Amino acid sequence: MTDFAATKAMFHIPDGMIYLDGNSLGPLPKAAPARVAKAMTEEWGEMLITGWNKAGWMAKATEVGDRVAKLIGAEAGHVVMGDTLSIKVYQALASALELRPERRVILSDSGNFPSDLYMAEGLIKSLGQGHELRIVAPEEVEENITEDVAVTLITEVDYRTGRLHDMKALTAKAHSVGALTIWDLAHTAGATDGKLSEARADFAVGCTYKYLNGGPGAPAFIYVAPQHANLVRPALSGWLGHDAPFAFDLSYRAGAGIERMRVGTPPILALASLEAALDAWATVDMSDLRTRSQELTQLFLEEVERRCPMLTLASPRDAAARGSQISFSFEQGYAAMQALIARGVIGDFRAPDIMRFGFTPLFIDEVDVLRACDVIEEVMTGKLWDKPEYHARAAVT
Amino acid sequence: MTDFAATKAMFHIPDGMIYLDGNSLGPLPKAAPARVAKAMTEEWGEMLITGWNKAGWMAKATEVGDRVAKLIGAEAGHVVMGDTLSIKVYQALASALELRPERRVILSDSGNFPSDLYMAEGLIKSLGQGHELRIVAPEEVEENITEDVAVTLITEVDYRTGRLHDMKALTAKAHSVGALTIWDLAHTAGATDGKLSEARADFAVGCTYKYLNGGPGAPAFIYVAPQHANLVRPALSGWLGHDAPFAFDLSYRAGAGIERMRVGTPPILALASLEAALDAWATVDMSDLRTRSQELTQLFLEEVERRCPMLTLASPRDAAARGSQISFSFEQGYAAMQALIARGVIGDFRAPDIMRFGFTPLFIDEVDVLRACDVIEEVMTGKLWDKPEYHARAAVT
Repeated sequence: MTDFAATKAMFHIPDGMIYLDGNSLGPLPKAAPARVAKAMTEEWGEMLITGWNKAGWMAKATEVGDRVAKLIGAEAGHVVMGDTLSIKVYQALASALELRPERRVILSDSGNFPSDLYMAEGLIKSLGQGHELRIVAPEEVEENITEDVAVTLITEVDYRTGRLHDMKALTAKAHSVGALTIWDLAHTAGATDGKLSEARADFAVGCTYKYLNGGPGAPAFIYVAPQHANLVRPALSGWLGHDAPFAFDLSYRAGAGIERMRVGTPPILALASLEAALDAWATVDMSDLRTRSQELTQLFLEEVERRCPMLTLASPRDAAARGSQISFSFEQGYAAMQALIARGVIGDFRAPDIMRFGFTPLFIDEVDVLRACDVIEEVMTGKLWDKPEYHARAAVT
Repeated sequence: MTDFAATKAMFHIPDGMIYLDGNSLGPLPKAAPARVAKAMTEEWGEMLITGWNKAGWMAKATEVGDRVAKLIGAEAGHVVMGDTLSIKVYQALASALELRPERRVILSDSGNFPSDLYMAEGLIKSLGQGHELRIVAPEEVEENITEDVAVTLITEVDYRTGRLHDMKALTAKAHSVGALTIWDLAHTAGATDGKLSEARADFAVGCTYKYLNGGPGAPAFIYVAPQHANLVRPALSGWLGHDAPFAFDLSYRAGAGIERMRVGTPPILALASLEAALDAWATVDMSDLRTRSQELTQLFLEEVERRCPMLTLASPRDAAARGSQISFSFEQGYAAMQALIARGVIGDFRAPDIMRFGFTPLFIDEVDVLRACDVIEEVMTGKLWDKPEYHARAAVT
């Protein structure tokens, strides 16, 4: 059994805070500052340019990719780090569309994170081939995977409700009609026992600053299934995806496999922080993680529902049908969340009325859940959110 | 007069090393580790998700952009940080081509950094409109700016030779035939007294890990001239370039001006390091910098030529016609550079035979130049490079 008390001790949580927003930005791993300081002083400071070889910087994008691959159920050698999730969406989508040149439909759902849809819109305009971004309700995805669909672009776990798509079933359906799949794992990686390879996913993308705790703006990742890895044309054909970057040829020749999904110079300081964060996963069994996540979310769901009838559950009631978050709808959700934050229970708000609470088993336990429930009960039953200062909106929530 | 002894004291250079490779990766600013540690422990660690507001993370991309703008002669409010240089090339090129929809030629030169050409190749294939990437010799750029050219994609300072293009003249020529200009400032920013606005450049892109000393993989920047900033369509239309990112609309609406060139979540740790690096520029007058750079490169050129007749100058002899580097051709240049590096004089090698030396006035002075010349003379006249270990190639040079 995974020792979650040991992993909890690896994170810094400010005194008195119950941090249920690891699904937005994971907390600081205690080992991360020293690891980044080492990368800065011992590597950059002393090795300077030779750090690319001596400190192994050039290989970090794939080395760290292999560590992430284990957490999402991907084959080793098929995940690479870099850029942001939005850029990785663009790469995956451009690749997938070229693999299905006779089709014009990108199927997504209204529960997808907007940036994925925006990137698709931008790509469609650039391609100018009349592709259609078809957005259906999340529960209607399966029936809409028809023979005109080139690729599905789906976020596995809905960022607002936590609803978990059935990756295996949807991928099988897509393949049955000749379509490809791109899975956005933003709220999956580190939140569930990822099974990319088992589900036969074609592409996947994700970020590392949520449940993987890499830090604000930590690099993204992309997965390309083995059967596609040497076939796809990189739309963002940067020099580090070139077959021989340091030959400085004037024309592009795609590198082998996942290497071609690299673009520019890798972000070494951010990768150092991420490496420290990934150390916390070394002893974690992912099926233990999934079980623990379900226990914690179920406890929270039941306690809050029992104590706070004014809140409406916005997440699936069935633990198997959701990721590692629980959301409630409440008309004054923004103010209520501000009141909770003022009392040390950190969740977040998503328009129009969603109060969102994320549970990372690595640092959240039952004691935290019950303490959070006490505060939520106090705020909700006492209408403590009904103060002007809780209604003032900040730029970022 | 700028106090370059004071700026020199702000950088960590290992004992005995003369670092003439700041044009590849700038050295560690002494203040950077503490600044990053602060971002990690005081901001990320204590503020967690609220750091986006409380620590001002969300505004960093444009705030830091304004600081870079001053160094490259751009208008405030027209530079934004993020991603890598290759991604920024893609954004600028996609934008420029759409502003000239009736034209099909992208003009570049064989001295451009290959990644820029690779990104152009990738974009051309995605667009599928029959654009041509026309690559001419650097000295033939001006005469090739003809009426079929949509945009020029030129690196101002040649990464191998240090040859400096005449930005003002080429931009004027481009505009006279209705073409646009994209300037890659990778070897310009922090190396010369940049004059983007004065030259009426349309777009510019650059990195911050060379003369700006931001650290390995530090974020890139993009400039869009005021007259284009609200007209361009962002091909990479990510959520942070949206007019209202936190409204989570399902469709994209470009943000105001340079904001639309933002894509995904900004790299906060890397930006913190870059902020510390930019502090070193606070007291630097850019025309002093240019003068000092010319003095140092001229001294180096004359001393090396006088002492080492076996080396052939590969950079312009006229200081006004080059950036802040001096390159020499030498058939055994790789081995010779390894021998220099073994003796603490750090330059780098670029295929096929270029020995490249960069001079950042912020931390290089005459004493360094003359000491470097002593070592170069010793290695070259004594053929000290002629040892097997200096011929073994590393993956990255």
